[in-house]
Amino acid sequence: MKTELEARYEAFKAKGLKLDMSRGKPNKAQLDLCDGILDIVNSSSDKNSSDGMETRNYGGLTGIPECRRLMAEIMGVDEKNVIVGGVASLTLMYDYIAQCMIFGCGGEPWIKQGEIKFLCPCPGYDRHFKILEHFGIKMINIKMNADGPDMDSIEEYIKDEKVKGLFCVPKYSNPDGITFSDEVVRRFAALKPAAKDFRVIWDNAYIVHDLSDTPDELLNIFDEAKKCGSEDMFIEVISTSKISYAGGGISAIAASDKNIADIKDRMSVQIISNDKVNQLRHARYFKDFDGIKAHMKKHAAILKPKFDAVTDGFAEAFDGTGIASWRKPNGGYFVSLFVMKGCAKRVGQLCKDAGLTLTTVGATYPYGIDPDDSNIRIAPSYPDVDELRKAVELLCICVKLAAVEKLIEG
Amino acid sequence: MKTELEARYEAFKAKGLKLDMSRGKPNKAQLDLCDGILDIVNSSSDKNSSDGMETRNYGGLTGIPECRRLMAEIMGVDEKNVIVGGVASLTLMYDYIAQCMIFGCGGEPWIKQGEIKFLCPCPGYDRHFKILEHFGIKMINIKMNADGPDMDSIEEYIKDEKVKGLFCVPKYSNPDGITFSDEVVRRFAALKPAAKDFRVIWDNAYIVHDLSDTPDELLNIFDEAKKCGSEDMFIEVISTSKISYAGGGISAIAASDKNIADIKDRMSVQIISNDKVNQLRHARYFKDFDGIKAHMKKHAAILKPKFDAVTDGFAEAFDGTGIASWRKPNGGYFVSLFVMKGCAKRVGQLCKDAGLTLTTVGATYPYGIDPDDSNIRIAPSYPDVDELRKAVELLCICVKLAAVEKLIEG
Repeated sequence: MKTELEARYEAFKAKGLKLDMSRGKPNKAQLDLCDGILDIVNSSSDKNSSDGMETRNYGGLTGIPECRRLMAEIMGVDEKNVIVGGVASLTLMYDYIAQCMIFGCGGEPWIKQGEIKFLCPCPGYDRHFKILEHFGIKMINIKMNADGPDMDSIEEYIKDEKVKGLFCVPKYSNPDGITFSDEVVRRFAALKPAAKDFRVIWDNAYIVHDLSDTPDELLNIFDEAKKCGSEDMFIEVISTSKISYAGGGISAIAASDKNIADIKDRMSVQIISNDKVNQLRHARYFKDFDGIKAHMKKHAAILKPKFDAVTDGFAEAFDGTGIASWRKPNGGYFVSLFVMKGCAKRVGQLCKDAGLTLTTVGATYPYGIDPDDSNIRIAPSYPDVDELRKAVELLCICVKLAAVEKLIEG
Repeated sequence: MKTELEARYEAFKAKGLKLDMSRGKPNKAQLDLCDGILDIVNSSSDKNSSDGMETRNYGGLTGIPECRRLMAEIMGVDEKNVIVGGVASLTLMYDYIAQCMIFGCGGEPWIKQGEIKFLCPCPGYDRHFKILEHFGIKMINIKMNADGPDMDSIEEYIKDEKVKGLFCVPKYSNPDGITFSDEVVRRFAALKPAAKDFRVIWDNAYIVHDLSDTPDELLNIFDEAKKCGSEDMFIEVISTSKISYAGGGISAIAASDKNIADIKDRMSVQIISNDKVNQLRHARYFKDFDGIKAHMKKHAAILKPKFDAVTDGFAEAFDGTGIASWRKPNGGYFVSLFVMKGCAKRVGQLCKDAGLTLTTVGATYPYGIDPDDSNIRIAPSYPDVDELRKAVELLCICVKLAAVEKLIEG
């Protein structure tokens, strides 16, 4: 069997492929979907927002009303609890953590509290972990279950007042594609951390990024938090990076009245307003939540066959073998593959040597260390379906080859 | 005389005016100048940058090459020493100071060094002072001379290693419109601060914002710094807020190789790229430095009569009285008026009561305190010339009235 796999692997290698499944990048067809947005604010159109503000000029720290409303509608929160950001929700998260470090959030500045910790449901999003590592915040791995992070262990850890928060992707999690169950969301809302300055960064990156006609449903965290009086604990962010353009979209942050006031206080020193012309483009192009939903169906039509190519390929290669497991997600941008323990790095190397770039193995865990060396994040969006089929076939060969090598090593 | 002034003041008040000379905002005619920028990247145009990068997608942390080049050309620095930012140079400055606070810049993080200080040439830009106040950095007033900040006192203060830097607007300073002389720039480059982590934020906000055909010339700070080996001491920022749009422009930061590396390290955690579609708009619309210069002449044609209305009005009202002084700037966005000591606040109040909003008196000094209560910043750009004439007439009456009141009080 090893010899046969090696032969198939060498045959692939000889093809000199150059394939990339490393990042959750939209493909060109997806970007083309909303090019009308480039024409909608033009030299002859009106450039004022609905309240008569000149978008081309200074002013409007929190965003133009129609754009704030659109982002609020998507998140299901009140307009007054939303601030429209720049191109990246990553920046909103980074800046919020920086703010907590320097100024605190209801307690001493985090930087003055000695070693502080964050809980990290994992596998998770590498850029969340990078923010924490950058600020020197200690990361603690939390297991992801089929219905979200392991709440038992979170409830235990937060008894330590040095534990200051967590980042999560509650819908179609990165990379597992898991949507938090109602019970998990309610347990989040009901958390009673020892730290009074505990913050959950609710990165709702895939809030409208469904692939199926029967999409996952996520409870509204602020509705649940209100019932528990815990609104101050949650900071939600979204962006249009995978709705309009990754390189020219807008983002938004939602938070309690108190947190919004703190964020505004900081922002008023940092910026006069984000790009309001681009806000106007987005508000006029998508109009409302229905406009967004209709647009996302077009994305899904492009993405669904790619996700199918990946999961069908896995089923074909691995069903009945027991050497790999994965979920078939209803949305989001990734498929998370678990290979035989101790094999993921070897799989990554084999793939790389044959011209297939995967997300760096380990990147889905804090400090880049997957304790089981088992998880591989697959990003199906960027390559076309044919390339993807080739890439998956190669990947599956590598997974089997690494498993066989491991078994022979004993 | 007091009675006559009071009568004229009351007559103005009765008109129920609503005038605003408070902020350096471009007016609508200026914004209209570059509306072609809204059409240049459209649904049918190519959206790739000159190196073939898809601007609509992720990637390109430091900016697309043609935009980086344009910003580098404006500042007279190498492309590799420039990063293109978002809508606001204010954010580039804020984020850089935040970075120094948390991570330091060649020394311990500033936040861990106890009370640190910045030197503040004043009158100056209120938003610089706000950043320093926000981070709890102690501000020390430095006198502005006709050729720039008082370098003797700067050279003295920097012997204290707690003094970590300064913000300045080296060309057409805010609000005085002073351009630093060659000698001042050279003395900046030659500074030998006790603090190894001393930083000069060279906010070149008005770098191409000339009003005259014989504009002021500012030496290139990095050319001078190279001669002294002090490139690491300088962080330069510019933006197109007053070139294209204040609400939809782009910014850029220039720094030494070492500082650029540090900024990139932080930015790579904070953002994937700034808005590259907007970068493409700017690069394609303005093309090169000549394109920028030609465009700025159109701004000047709109602004020059407004500045003249202000300085002519002042000359008419105050020449020979000795109760006020001002400079006639060759560019920038402000006229700085010095009224009789102890009278500026009273002038602000009188104007406000008659419907004319000025920049908050005191805002041009650290902590909002003008020690002489004398400086008033006039922003002529936003109102039209007729309004401006009315506003200046009213302002001059208020200045005289306040002076007379003061003299009578004794």
